[in-house]
Amino acid sequence: MGAPFFHPLSLRNVMSRFWSAGIADLSPYVPGEQPQMQRLIKLNTNENPYGPSPRVLAAIREALGNDADALKLYPDPDARRFKHAIATRFGLELANVHVGNGSDEVLANVFQGLLRHDKPILFPDITYSFYPVYCGLYDVAYDTVPLTGTFEIRVDDYLTPNGGIIFPNPNAPTGRVLASGEIERLLAGNPDSVVVIDEAYIDFGGESAAGLIAKYPNLLVVQTLSKSRSLAGLRLGFAIGHPDLIEALERVKNSFNSYPLDRLAQAAGVAAIEDEAYFDETRQAVIASREALTARLAALGFEVLPSKANFVFARLPSHDAAQLAAALRERSVIVRHFKHARVAQFLRITVGTEPACQALTEALREILDRH
Amino acid sequence: MGAPFFHPLSLRNVMSRFWSAGIADLSPYVPGEQPQMQRLIKLNTNENPYGPSPRVLAAIREALGNDADALKLYPDPDARRFKHAIATRFGLELANVHVGNGSDEVLANVFQGLLRHDKPILFPDITYSFYPVYCGLYDVAYDTVPLTGTFEIRVDDYLTPNGGIIFPNPNAPTGRVLASGEIERLLAGNPDSVVVIDEAYIDFGGESAAGLIAKYPNLLVVQTLSKSRSLAGLRLGFAIGHPDLIEALERVKNSFNSYPLDRLAQAAGVAAIEDEAYFDETRQAVIASREALTARLAALGFEVLPSKANFVFARLPSHDAAQLAAALRERSVIVRHFKHARVAQFLRITVGTEPACQALTEALREILDRH
Repeated sequence: MGAPFFHPLSLRNVMSRFWSAGIADLSPYVPGEQPQMQRLIKLNTNENPYGPSPRVLAAIREALGNDADALKLYPDPDARRFKHAIATRFGLELANVHVGNGSDEVLANVFQGLLRHDKPILFPDITYSFYPVYCGLYDVAYDTVPLTGTFEIRVDDYLTPNGGIIFPNPNAPTGRVLASGEIERLLAGNPDSVVVIDEAYIDFGGESAAGLIAKYPNLLVVQTLSKSRSLAGLRLGFAIGHPDLIEALERVKNSFNSYPLDRLAQAAGVAAIEDEAYFDETRQAVIASREALTARLAALGFEVLPSKANFVFARLPSHDAAQLAAALRERSVIVRHFKHARVAQFLRITVGTEPACQALTEALREILDRH
Repeated sequence: MGAPFFHPLSLRNVMSRFWSAGIADLSPYVPGEQPQMQRLIKLNTNENPYGPSPRVLAAIREALGNDADALKLYPDPDARRFKHAIATRFGLELANVHVGNGSDEVLANVFQGLLRHDKPILFPDITYSFYPVYCGLYDVAYDTVPLTGTFEIRVDDYLTPNGGIIFPNPNAPTGRVLASGEIERLLAGNPDSVVVIDEAYIDFGGESAAGLIAKYPNLLVVQTLSKSRSLAGLRLGFAIGHPDLIEALERVKNSFNSYPLDRLAQAAGVAAIEDEAYFDETRQAVIASREALTARLAALGFEVLPSKANFVFARLPSHDAAQLAAALRERSVIVRHFKHARVAQFLRITVGTEPACQALTEALREILDRH
C-alpha cells in the first residue's frame, strides 16, 4: 500500500469535491508543539510543573479496578459526580454546570450554542488564537477590539452593541488580569449579550467571576483542569453559569457526543477538584516561581508584563524574539513565539519548576553573552 | 444558593434569547440509560460482556506511571501511535486514519466535514438515531430511504442523486448485514458522493469494507473500540479512507479541539488494537452466544432478525414490546425499545455473557407463563 496514493499528512495541501461547504476555508488552530525529545526544558504550552494531586492517581486506579472490566461499560453521559464536585466548590447546583473534554471542547460548545447571533461578537485583538478558529467553524461573525498600548482590556471598548463577548482572564498570551469590579461593569453594561470569561489561568492570582453568576444571567465562566489542576493529559474543562446558558451547551453536547468524558477522566476530575489543599499548595508554588522568574528576566534586561497566569509574556528590546526562541531551542529550551505583529517581539514563557526556570535563565545568559 | 433561580436539569424546558440561532430547534440524541442499580442484567447499550484485553490495563498503568506526573503534559494532538496501530492493522498509512473521542465524535466530524452539500444525504428510515441529530446540529439536509419489508438495505434505492450516503453495517438496530459485494456496487454507483459505512458492529460476523479503500476514494469506513474491543468506558473511535477525506476530518478536528484523545485513552487504544488474539477470542465468544440466544428466543416464540452484530432485534407477535420491556425491567433485566412505528414491536437485546443470556430467557419465560 505504499503507492503514491498515500501521502504523509504534513505534505497535504489539497481540496476535494467531497468536502462540505466551508471546510476548505477553515484555518485550523495550531497548538504549541509536543516534542518527543528527551531532556527538554518544555516551557511552551503552560503545563503545570507539579503534576496532579496524588488523589487523582488513586481515583484512576480505583476506577480501573483490577481487571479493567469497568472500561467495558459506557460512562455516565451526564458526568454527574464530576458536575457535583464543581457545583460544590462554587456553591452552585448541577444545573449551573456544563463539562467537556477539555475547555477547548467547552469553548467550542459555547461558540456554537451561545455566540452565533445577528451582531458580531467581540474579543481582543491579542488573545487566545483559537477564538477566530471557532468563529470560522461555526460561522460566528466577530470584531476584534485592540488592547491598550500596555496590553490591557478596557471595558469601555466593549460597551457597544454586540452579539456576545469573550476573553480570557487573565488574558492569553499577555497574562494581564482584569479586576473583578471591571468584569461586573462589563456584565452590567451588556445585559443583552452573553459575556464569557475564559478563566483558564485564574487560579494563579486573579479573582474568579464565579461569584457574580447568581447576579448576572448573562455571565458564563469557563475553566479548565489542564493548568491549576495539572491534568492537561486527561482533557477536562467546564463552564458555570445560569441554567439557561448551561441548557444551550447541554443541547449542543447531546446533539454531538453523548459521552464526551470517559470513566477515568471523570473519576480523576472529581479527585482533582476535591483536593483543595494540594491545589492551593501547588498554585502558590507556581505563583512564587513566577515572581522569581519575573525578577530574573528583568535583571537580564527583559520587559515583563505583569502576569497573574502560570506564564510570563516578555520581550528583550535588544534582541529579535523569533531568533531568541530559536537560540533557546538550540539549548533544548522550548518557549512559545507568536507571529501576530503587535506581539512578534515577545516570548511567552511557562513558569516551570525552579530548576527549569534556572535552566532558562542560564541559557538566556549564555545567548546574551555571545551577542 | 438554593433559590428558585436554580432548577434540576431534568425539569428544564426553556428557551433563551442568549441561545444561538437554531439551538432551540435541536432534538438531542437520547442514549440508552446507564442506571446505577446493582445486580442489573444490562442488555440495553450493546456493551461487550467480556471486558477489554488485559494488555489494555497494563498499557494504562504504564502510561500513568507511578506518580501520575505524566498526566500534567498534553497528549499527542495527532495520536500518532494510535493511528499507527490502526493503519498497521488495515494495511494503510497514517494519512488514511482519523481518530476521535468515540465514534460518535468521529461521526460528528463526518457530518460536519463531508456530508453538507447542495443535495440531501441518504440514510435508512430505520437506523442509528443519532444521524438525524447530527443533521440538525450541522444543517445537513437528508432524505430517509425505507428498508425493505424484511428490514434490509437495498442498494438500488441509493443509486439516485444525493449529497452523500451513510448507514451502519450491520445496520442498527436491526443487526442485518449488507454483503461486501453490495457495498462495492453502491460505491461504484455513487462516484460523486461520499459513502460512509459505519462499522460499529462489523467484527461480530460481517465483512469490513476497509479492503475497498484503495479502490474507492469516496469510501469512508468508521469503526469504534466500544464494542468489539470492549472500551465503551474510554471513548475511542476512528475513520479510515482516502487521505482527501481524512484531511477534511482533520481540518474539522483541528478547528474544534486540538487534543480530543487523552493520554490514557491513546495508550489503551494502541494495546486494544494490537492484541488481535484476545480480540478474536472474545468476538467469537459473542458470536457463539448470539447464535445460542437467537435459538432460545425462537424457542420462546420470538421472530429474530438474522443478526451479525452483538445484539439481536426480535419481536414476540403475542406481546406488546413496550410492555415486555417494562416487565423485564421489573425483573432487573434492561433491554432497549424504540418508539419508531415500524419497529415499535421489537426489542433490541444486547448479547451478554451466557449467565446474562440465561437470566434474560428465564425472565421472559416467567413473563410468558403469567400472561
